[in-house]
Amino acid sequence: MKNLNDLFEHTLQDVYYAKNAGVKLLTKTQNKARDTDLAEAISVHLGEARTQITALEAVFQSLGQKPKGEKCDAIEGLIKETEGVMSTAKGDVAINAGIIAALQAVKHYEISRYGSLREWAKVLGHAQAHTLLSEILDEEKAFNNKLTNLAVTSVNSAEAVNA
Amino acid sequence: MKNLNDLFEHTLQDVYYAKNAGVKLLTKTQNKARDTDLAEAISVHLGEARTQITALEAVFQSLGQKPKGEKCDAIEGLIKETEGVMSTAKGDVAINAGIIAALQAVKHYEISRYGSLREWAKVLGHAQAHTLLSEILDEEKAFNNKLTNLAVTSVNSAEAVNA
Repeated sequence: MKNLNDLFEHTLQDVYYAKNAGVKLLTKTQNKARDTDLAEAISVHLGEARTQITALEAVFQSLGQKPKGEKCDAIEGLIKETEGVMSTAKGDVAINAGIIAALQAVKHYEISRYGSLREWAKVLGHAQAHTLLSEILDEEKAFNNKLTNLAVTSVNSAEAVNA
Repeated sequence: MKNLNDLFEHTLQDVYYAKNAGVKLLTKTQNKARDTDLAEAISVHLGEARTQITALEAVFQSLGQKPKGEKCDAIEGLIKETEGVMSTAKGDVAINAGIIAALQAVKHYEISRYGSLREWAKVLGHAQAHTLLSEILDEEKAFNNKLTNLAVTSVNSAEAVNA
């Protein structure tokens, strides 16, 4: 990678891999969740994530490239951590809180990546890519905020802890 | 992990491991940075990170426990990704932008973790832990904002791209 454009394209391949892996992870967490509001929120975001894959493919096309994923070590580590929590947590409160926290770690990773990609697209003059990446970034931030609200109002409530 | 307190303690061990690993990573990125403002910002945060290790040890002590780290898959993946970028990026612009983006991914991971831990400490009634974890969270957010400013105003400037 000898310049910013190379870094942009490499990172785009990285998030395309991560997004596809993320869809599988969301499905697993949805099945494991013990709270209907949490499962419903994950289900809605699963729909968004699938649409985001199409949007990323449009980003590749806007650059005259075929969509291509490159193995992303960070998402692999985050997935391993999420699966570890899901396999060791017992009881509804720990399972739900563990899933929310793990998904928020994934969302924060994506927020940082789409934030960088969006900025680089602007500097590099990739206008369509900038628009599409900004839309994905906004959806990731919104889902992260929804998870925070679920954690604060439901899963982490004092009632739940003492259950 | 059968309840929220178990999850809290497990995640605390996880971030203690990640913080120690993060200090080593910061040192490597500081040595590799090709921008004096970026190297200086990393240097300042290295000092904060070392103080945060002491703060985390105080959190363990406030719970009547000895500090203990547990291997954190997510930080291992993030470190691998950062080292990959540092070894493949060529040219000042790609190196600096790659370092900033990789560090922001690490910071976002930490922001998500300290956000969850801080919230759980409050619900569990660990007042001192809540205060210490909130301070770390604020420092991580501030360093992430500093990195965003460096990316936008310096490293990603159109001048730098065309250099």
